[in-house]
Parts: sequence; structure tokens; C-alpha cells
Amino acid sequence: MKRALDTARSDNFSEWYQEVVRKSDMAETSAVRGCMVIKPWGYGIWELIQADLDRRFKETGHENCYFPLFIPLDFIAKEAEHVEGFAKEMAVVTHHRLKTIDGELVPDPDAELTEPLIVRPTSETIIADSFRNWIGSYRDLPVLVNQWANVVRWEMRTRLFLRTAEFLWQEGHTAHVDRGDAFEETLRMLEVYREFAESVMAMPVIAGEKTENERFPGADNTFSIEAMMQDGKALQAGTSHYLGTHFSEAQGIKYQSAEGDEKFVHTTSWGVSTRLVGGLVMTHGDDDGLRVPPALAPQQIVILPRLKGDDSDAPILEYCDTLRKQLIGSRALGAPIRAQVDRKDKNASAKRWDWVRRGAPLLVEIGPREVEANAVSVLRRDALYEGEKVNPENTTPDELANTAASRLEDIQSSMHGQAKTFMESRIESGIAEFGALGEFFGEASEDEDGPSEGPLRWARVPWCKPTGAALAAIEAKLDPLKLTIRNAPLDQNGVSGACIFTGEEAVEEILIARAY
Amino acid sequence: MKRALDTARSDNFSEWYQEVVRKSDMAETSAVRGCMVIKPWGYGIWELIQADLDRRFKETGHENCYFPLFIPLDFIAKEAEHVEGFAKEMAVVTHHRLKTIDGELVPDPDAELTEPLIVRPTSETIIADSFRNWIGSYRDLPVLVNQWANVVRWEMRTRLFLRTAEFLWQEGHTAHVDRGDAFEETLRMLEVYREFAESVMAMPVIAGEKTENERFPGADNTFSIEAMMQDGKALQAGTSHYLGTHFSEAQGIKYQSAEGDEKFVHTTSWGVSTRLVGGLVMTHGDDDGLRVPPALAPQQIVILPRLKGDDSDAPILEYCDTLRKQLIGSRALGAPIRAQVDRKDKNASAKRWDWVRRGAPLLVEIGPREVEANAVSVLRRDALYEGEKVNPENTTPDELANTAASRLEDIQSSMHGQAKTFMESRIESGIAEFGALGEFFGEASEDEDGPSEGPLRWARVPWCKPTGAALAAIEAKLDPLKLTIRNAPLDQNGVSGACIFTGEEAVEEILIARAY
Repeated sequence: MKRALDTARSDNFSEWYQEVVRKSDMAETSAVRGCMVIKPWGYGIWELIQADLDRRFKETGHENCYFPLFIPLDFIAKEAEHVEGFAKEMAVVTHHRLKTIDGELVPDPDAELTEPLIVRPTSETIIADSFRNWIGSYRDLPVLVNQWANVVRWEMRTRLFLRTAEFLWQEGHTAHVDRGDAFEETLRMLEVYREFAESVMAMPVIAGEKTENERFPGADNTFSIEAMMQDGKALQAGTSHYLGTHFSEAQGIKYQSAEGDEKFVHTTSWGVSTRLVGGLVMTHGDDDGLRVPPALAPQQIVILPRLKGDDSDAPILEYCDTLRKQLIGSRALGAPIRAQVDRKDKNASAKRWDWVRRGAPLLVEIGPREVEANAVSVLRRDALYEGEKVNPENTTPDELANTAASRLEDIQSSMHGQAKTFMESRIESGIAEFGALGEFFGEASEDEDGPSEGPLRWARVPWCKPTGAALAAIEAKLDPLKLTIRNAPLDQNGVSGACIFTGEEAVEEILIARAY
Repeated sequence: MKRALDTARSDNFSEWYQEVVRKSDMAETSAVRGCMVIKPWGYGIWELIQADLDRRFKETGHENCYFPLFIPLDFIAKEAEHVEGFAKEMAVVTHHRLKTIDGELVPDPDAELTEPLIVRPTSETIIADSFRNWIGSYRDLPVLVNQWANVVRWEMRTRLFLRTAEFLWQEGHTAHVDRGDAFEETLRMLEVYREFAESVMAMPVIAGEKTENERFPGADNTFSIEAMMQDGKALQAGTSHYLGTHFSEAQGIKYQSAEGDEKFVHTTSWGVSTRLVGGLVMTHGDDDGLRVPPALAPQQIVILPRLKGDDSDAPILEYCDTLRKQLIGSRALGAPIRAQVDRKDKNASAKRWDWVRRGAPLLVEIGPREVEANAVSVLRRDALYEGEKVNPENTTPDELANTAASRLEDIQSSMHGQAKTFMESRIESGIAEFGALGEFFGEASEDEDGPSEGPLRWARVPWCKPTGAALAAIEAKLDPLKLTIRNAPLDQNGVSGACIFTGEEAVEEILIARAY
């Protein structure tokens, strides 16, 4: 059976991923090492992600701001002093002018900055500097801000959306009177991410707390949502951190309490990035390309006229435009339906398969026959085949317009259900000892992207939540298997039995998986 | 008469501007030289500017993309070869790692980039690189894309919103089969900007073409919209460029025509930036702070409860919340009304003046008396005083809810009318010779920000549209007066008489002004 991509998921998941991203017109590599170009279809998905999350942030009381792209080196130095595990791969600006010397354009030696600037890898320090000015009394708290921005981390090996030197994200930053208030915020935003992933991305996730060694540098607690990709690996899809008073002590952010004492504020930060688009691909893509859940599809219904390039085209196009007008007049999933007529001068079959690869949820094909019969031919992208054949459904334009919302809503929930079954059926909870864990996951292959062979799934196992050297010893055992501890799910089943690493009494369950 | 700012416009316009921006909580300077922090009220205005323009871009067929922040040095070198007047003040990234050497964090000498990267000052070259890959045949044209992004230009003297090292903007980039199509696009987007400025910003502008010497480097034609600030100076508020084949020749962007010939595409670019927010302040601000036109006000109606901090507060807050709910249920200016209850623990008068300075269009004050009388006390920010007194209007919550939309729409058009009268009454069209021009504008003061004294207005004069040396000679005459040619308005009155610079026969009228 011929499919719309050259590579199947089961052949080579990593190559399949690259092919989907390229052939769905989402993104491409650029002339700049590690930086991507996000094309209209990919950016359209990101815009819908942004719009939905932004509404959720505002509903939970946050306001948007914008802070500088550059961070003075001494802010970073201060952070490095305070924070263990601080990463040093960043883009450093050292000059502010170019000059032609001996016929060559070079950084002007006379325009060296007295202090280098760092392109923000994240904005805790520069935002803390503003917080110090904004906060005087308990009356000024909480401060709840967010920014949508680009950030840069110098990654050596990059992959479109999943790991790039520059990426787009949002970073929420908040300041509170005490631990209780800040901790509540940390969990509130984790829940915003979880709910968004499930209901809008149709991507099931498990929310939980990271271990001590996987915390954000400077955090007292780090929480994540973890999604299962179709190769069985985990993708960390969003994080929320309770930062305690680390940043407020480093930057002197104090407030006067109602009782008149000077206290340090407690801060949080939380973020998701364009990485989510990569997660979308690996959750919902199939061997014909991407499938976009309707809530995030820049075009939910694409109407494909079969054109001949002569006078017979006009009534077909008119028929299509009338249908489109009907469709965009109704709402689905809380917003007006997004529908487009693809007027491109290209043959009908090529257009069909372009949109299959892009993953538009509903395709409507209209030729002279349909116009004459007052009919439309409808393809549902999430269930393209009946047996081995693509089998369009015939109906009328009116019926389609009347059912468009419920069709889209059905696709949304069906895609979520499918992904949820996939994930839930692949979490093993019956492993009671470390040896069985190795057998369950099988050998780690030497594939540079990590193993893509073997029964790649997740295990949920009891452990004793050790710290320090004891935790490091466990990680040393997992490392040769390329296994990582993803998180300790918030939703604990009531643990019993012994820690599979130490034999001590277990205190909670954790998720173990190979990961991106 | 006491006003809400320390500085009046007539005292010192430049200081007044800084005070408005600061006291309206729009933006502040940051720890990074030349970079600003945009605070929620300022960013909220920018978000509304973005949303409205973005809708207009999409309605005219454009799609959003995202291109890399960094530009390889050799792209810039290629541009410098092709383009005269190329600016060299830019942020240069030379290292990708920090290292602690002798206890100090510095750029790691072992992590020097083989080729420096430039932080984008604009994206023509990097986008042209993608266009080359995207375009093969006439069927791929036009390509119509836009990006919302941050850009960096190393400015020596900066002022919040008006001129900062980093700023936010949108840049549209398009490619077309020929000059006709590209030129039409250039003018279409100029008209989008003009219409937006007038109807959404309530800021009257004059659209026209820049002279040869004021073109964007690489453009065949540059058009601008120019707005008159309250000090009489001009602010260039948006530009649209027809770039001919300069960039397509430099980067080899060719297509095969329907006839099978290889041709270079014709490109355009067009942009507006956070500078618009500065224009908003200088168009609509008064001696009490900012006045935001309702279409761009993050909160259009702010309800201010008079609270005592005791049990008597509850019914007042309930009354306020009920009113807010009524208000946000209706629409004004094409969108749901934005209304907020300011619950801050602060005295009522301080809250009133905070919101006056921020410029929320309608303020509604509610205390125990209003609750008892089923009344509200309404202040219209654009017409705060009756004589020398602030004179609130008393009405009922229902009446206010029923008239809120028409009140906001009235404020919007009244602010536009006021600004339009201001501008139109200050353009002098009767100057027939160069000597009179000098007299009209008066001496240039030595104020470093340019003159703020004298009858700062605009003159519309006939000229012969010279080029090259003849144009340079005219600029040399204008320069000591700190005068610049803003543009040749598209809307020409039918020119007659002689060029005021050369005495030759005039071919068009141009606008002359001092400018930001």
C-alpha cells in the first residue's frame, strides 16, 4: 500500500519525523547553524497554541510584558555563583559595529563592548531586576507576568522544533509573599499546561515532580508534563518551577510585610516552547504525514476544487466559495470554523496529498460532477482509509455545513482518545525489581538519537525518593540503559512494596522512560 | 490649576514625554543600555495594535512566518556590496560559550565562532535566502509573508519607544512576478497603515513618497506615513518599500515565467514598530498623562470602588462586579468591551489619578452613596475638565451599560477629530520662496533633541523633484534649519508655480518639517 511519505514510522522514526516536518511545510533549516525557519503552516499552529494559552494565562490573572533580549554578563555571573548546574553555552555579543578592514567586513575592534551581553537563554535574572524596582510592600504582591519571546541556547546537535539554538516560547514569572502562595501558583500553571495539552493538543500527558537532579538550576521544586511519543520515548512538554527565595536573595527583591518586617519574595517561573509543535507531530503524525487536531489546525476544512484551467472552472469555484462562506459562519470548538478554498494551479490529486501531508482535519473535494449533483466528497484526515482504500464520503453541502462543528469536535476527541489509549496501554506498572526493568526496556541501541528499537515504553515503579549520592547511584545504574526518571506523577496510586533500586520501603511511584 | 503630571507639554515637551511614559506605567529603562522594559499597560496597547494589524495583513492575503534572529556576516557583507548607505551599527555575536578564567566569567576564547553572527537589524537578506528555495515557477508567486519579531540597531541616544537598541516590530516581505504587481502591494500596505493609524490609533497621517536620499537602502521607492506630534514635529510612523530586483539579484531569487523565461522576482518590504506607541503618546497625551483611544485601551472602562477596608466594602464590590459583567457583555468598536474593577488597596483619589495618567477612556467611581442611590459617577478621560474643575457625570448603571458602546465610539471619533484639526490647521501651504520658509519655521534651537521652541509646524511647498547633486544642495540648505523633507503626499493638490528651492517649474508638492 502506497503512503504519502517515503519513510514509515516503523522504518526509522527519526527520519520519519524530519520528513513529516519538511513535507507538511511546517519548518525548514536555515542558513544559520541551529536556527530554523518556521513556515506558515507551522507558525499558524504556533499562533493557535499561543492564543489559547494566552487566554488561559490572562484568565488566571497574568499580564504580558516584554523584557530585554540581552542580559548583562554580570547578571549571569551573579546567577552562576548562586546556582549549581548553571549552563554556559550561550550566544555572546561582544561588538556593536562592523567595519571594512582590508576589503573585508569584520567586527570593528574599536567598537568592543566594555561588558559583553548575553542573548537571553531565559529571563529570570533580568526580570528579577525589574521586580526589585516594582515591589516595595505586600500590597504590590503578587506580581504575575508573562512574556512571549525568542531565546537562544547554543545546542550542538539540533532538530527542528525539538532542539534548536533559537526557539520561541513563553516564560511566566511571578513573585509572592510566601511559599504557600508561590507553590500554589506553581501547581496552578502546571495544571493549565496539563489541561491545555489534553484538551487542545489532544496530547495526553502525565504531570509530576522532577527529581532533585533534574530541577531547573535555582529551583526548590520543578514540575513537568511528560508526553509519550509514538516511538515510546518521553517528551518533556512543559515545566513549572517553584524558585523559593534563590532569585530574590541574589537580586535583593524584598517587600515590607503587613506587620512591617522586611522579607524576601518567593518566585516562580514556568514555560512551554515551540517544542510543543514537535510533540504534536510525534503524537499525531502517521505514515501519510501530520494530523493536526482541529483545535490547532490553521485551516480545519480545506476545499479542493478540481479545475481544468478553462471556462468550466468558474461555477466550480463559485460553488466552493459558497460552501466556504457557509462553513466559516458557524463555530466549532469555541471559535469560528477556519476553512479555505485551495485555488492553486495544480492537479487535484497533488493538492489532495499536499493537504493530507499537512494534516488538515477535513478535506472536501469538488469537481463538475459534485456541482451538478449538489454534492461534496469529504475525507476525514484522521481516518483516511477504509481497509486499504481512501474512501471519501458523499454528502450535500448543506449537510456538511450543518454537521461541520460536530465532525470537527468528534475528530478532536477521537484523536485524544487514540493517543490516550496508546499511552495508557504502554505504561507497565508490574515491575518489582531492577533486573526486570532492564529486561522490559531491552538493550539500548547505539543510534546517536538514542534507541529506536525495542519495546520502548514507560515503567511506573516504586522507589524510596533518595537524594544526593544515593540518587546519583541510581542514575548511574539507569544511564547505560539510556533510561531516565521522568517525574513522580502527582496522581499517586497509593504506593506499596519496596524501592526497586534499593529494596528500602518505597514512598512514591516514578515514571521511567527513554526520552527526547 | 493642578495637573496630574509635574511637567506640562508647553514647559518641556521632551521631559513631558518621558514623564507620561513613566507615570502611565507603559515602559521603563532597563539595566541593558538602550533596551526598554515594556510594562503591562504599554504591552497591552502593543498587543491591541498587533491584533488589529495582523487581521488586516491576513485579510490582504499574508501569512505569518518566523525567520532566524541571527544573520550570517557574509549575508550582511553581500548586502553592503549591493547597497549604498548601508548602516554598520549592529550587535555582533562572536562567542558561543562563557568560561570562568581566574575567577571571572568571560567569553571562552576556545568558543569563538568561525563566522560572527549579526543580531537582525531587519530581515531582508535572511528571508531572501528562504525565498530562493521557495520560488521556482510563476505558480509560486506572489509569496506574501510577515513576521512579528524583535530587532536590534545599536543606537547611541535612545528614548523609550521612539528610539531603542532593541524594539518590537512587524516586517512584511513579499515577492512578485513583476514591477506592477510588487508596486501595487507596496501601495496597498501603505494604505493599510494609513487606514489603521486614522481609524484605530485616531492619529491622522499623511501618506507619501520619500525622496531619493531618504529611501531604505536597496529600495527603488520608499513610502511613509507621517504624523504630527503636539510639538509640531513629524514622526515617521510606518514605511513601505518597493525593492525592485535589488535583493533578488543579490541572492539569485529567480522564477520561470509562464513563457519559460528565467526572471528575477520583484520584492517589497514594509514595517511598523513599537515606535507607534510613542506616536500615540505625543498625539493624544495631555498635561494629566496619556489618553488612549478606546480601540487601543487594554481597559476601556475602569471601575473604581471607594473602599474602607471593612464590612461596608462587600456590597460596593458586588455592585461594581455586577456593572462590569453588564459592560463586558456588550461590544464596542467591533470587539467585546474591556472593563476592569480596580480592587487595589489604595485610596480612591490616588486610584483615580493613576488611571487618569494611564489614560483609560472612561472612569466609573462608586462609593456607598452611589450604591444607595443606584447611581454611578462617570469621568470621560478625553474631556476631564469643565472649566477648571473635574466634573463627573451622574447616571445609573443601566444607562451607562446601554450607552457604553456609543460613549466609547464617540470618544474614539472625537479624539481623531481633535488630532486632525490640530494637524490640518498647522500645515502652511502659502509659502512661495525659500526665505519665507526660514521665517516660518524660525531659528533652530540648540536643544539636543532638536528645537522645541518656535512655531513648529509643517510647510507644504512646490518643488521640482531634483535628484543627485541638486537634491543634496537643497538638503544642505535645509540642514542648518534642522528641517527635513518628510514626503511628497500621494494626495497632490495639482501643483502650480515655481520650485521654492530652484525657481524651476515645480512638479509636485512636498512636506517640510522638523522631525523625530
